[in-house]
Amino acid sequence: MGRVTSPAPLDPAIAARLKRDDHGLVAAIVQQHDTGEVLMLGWMDDEALRRTLTEGRVTYWSRSRGEYWRKGDTSGNVQHVRSVALDCDGDALLVRVDQVGPACHTGTRTCFDGRDLEAVPYAGE
Amino acid sequence: MGRVTSPAPLDPAIAARLKRDDHGLVAAIVQQHDTGEVLMLGWMDDEALRRTLTEGRVTYWSRSRGEYWRKGDTSGNVQHVRSVALDCDGDALLVRVDQVGPACHTGTRTCFDGRDLEAVPYAGE
Repeated sequence: MGRVTSPAPLDPAIAARLKRDDHGLVAAIVQQHDTGEVLMLGWMDDEALRRTLTEGRVTYWSRSRGEYWRKGDTSGNVQHVRSVALDCDGDALLVRVDQVGPACHTGTRTCFDGRDLEAVPYAGE
Repeated sequence: MGRVTSPAPLDPAIAARLKRDDHGLVAAIVQQHDTGEVLMLGWMDDEALRRTLTEGRVTYWSRSRGEYWRKGDTSGNVQHVRSVALDCDGDALLVRVDQVGPACHTGTRTCFDGRDLEAVPYAGE
């Protein structure tokens, strides 16, 4: 039988910078690269980040389903990776993408569209 | 002695929509309202969100210090609230602000500036 080769793990230099939550995850903010729209927030473990950095497509860890989830594989609403940055304290990623179609499973472009909360805006000093 | 009146709690209709993590927190993505820059990611519990919705300034829960933290009280780098939206599944907020000075405690404008990870971009299909 042939030997199955596991993929290389996430770059240890990157892994050492991650500050994971109790479930081993970091938050991934996803932004449309040209318009600046914040599309959604997802969650990544080391392997989801490794796939995202190497495949040109965004993969998340689904907390509700307990499995990897490459955005668009079911819906067709693919996210093509443009860049990925890690924040100063290592617990958040900013993933800039080119989003095909709506990012939200409800059909809106972003997961925040039409979901404003009533806020008292800053009134000046 | 006078009776101390507690502030009203967060609107129950909003509280009912929040999907909090094990620590009672939701993620708050902070975006500069006009340029679209993603400035930082913070964390809010119900009370931090209530203050943010009513005070015109952004308040977080500091997980490292275990206390409320109104951005800019120490540094002067105030965040004036423009709008707040809750995402489709209730675990992330998008807070649009007018940021005074740098958002990052390291002095960079955003917490992601100069912190790109090496990513293989989408190569076309």
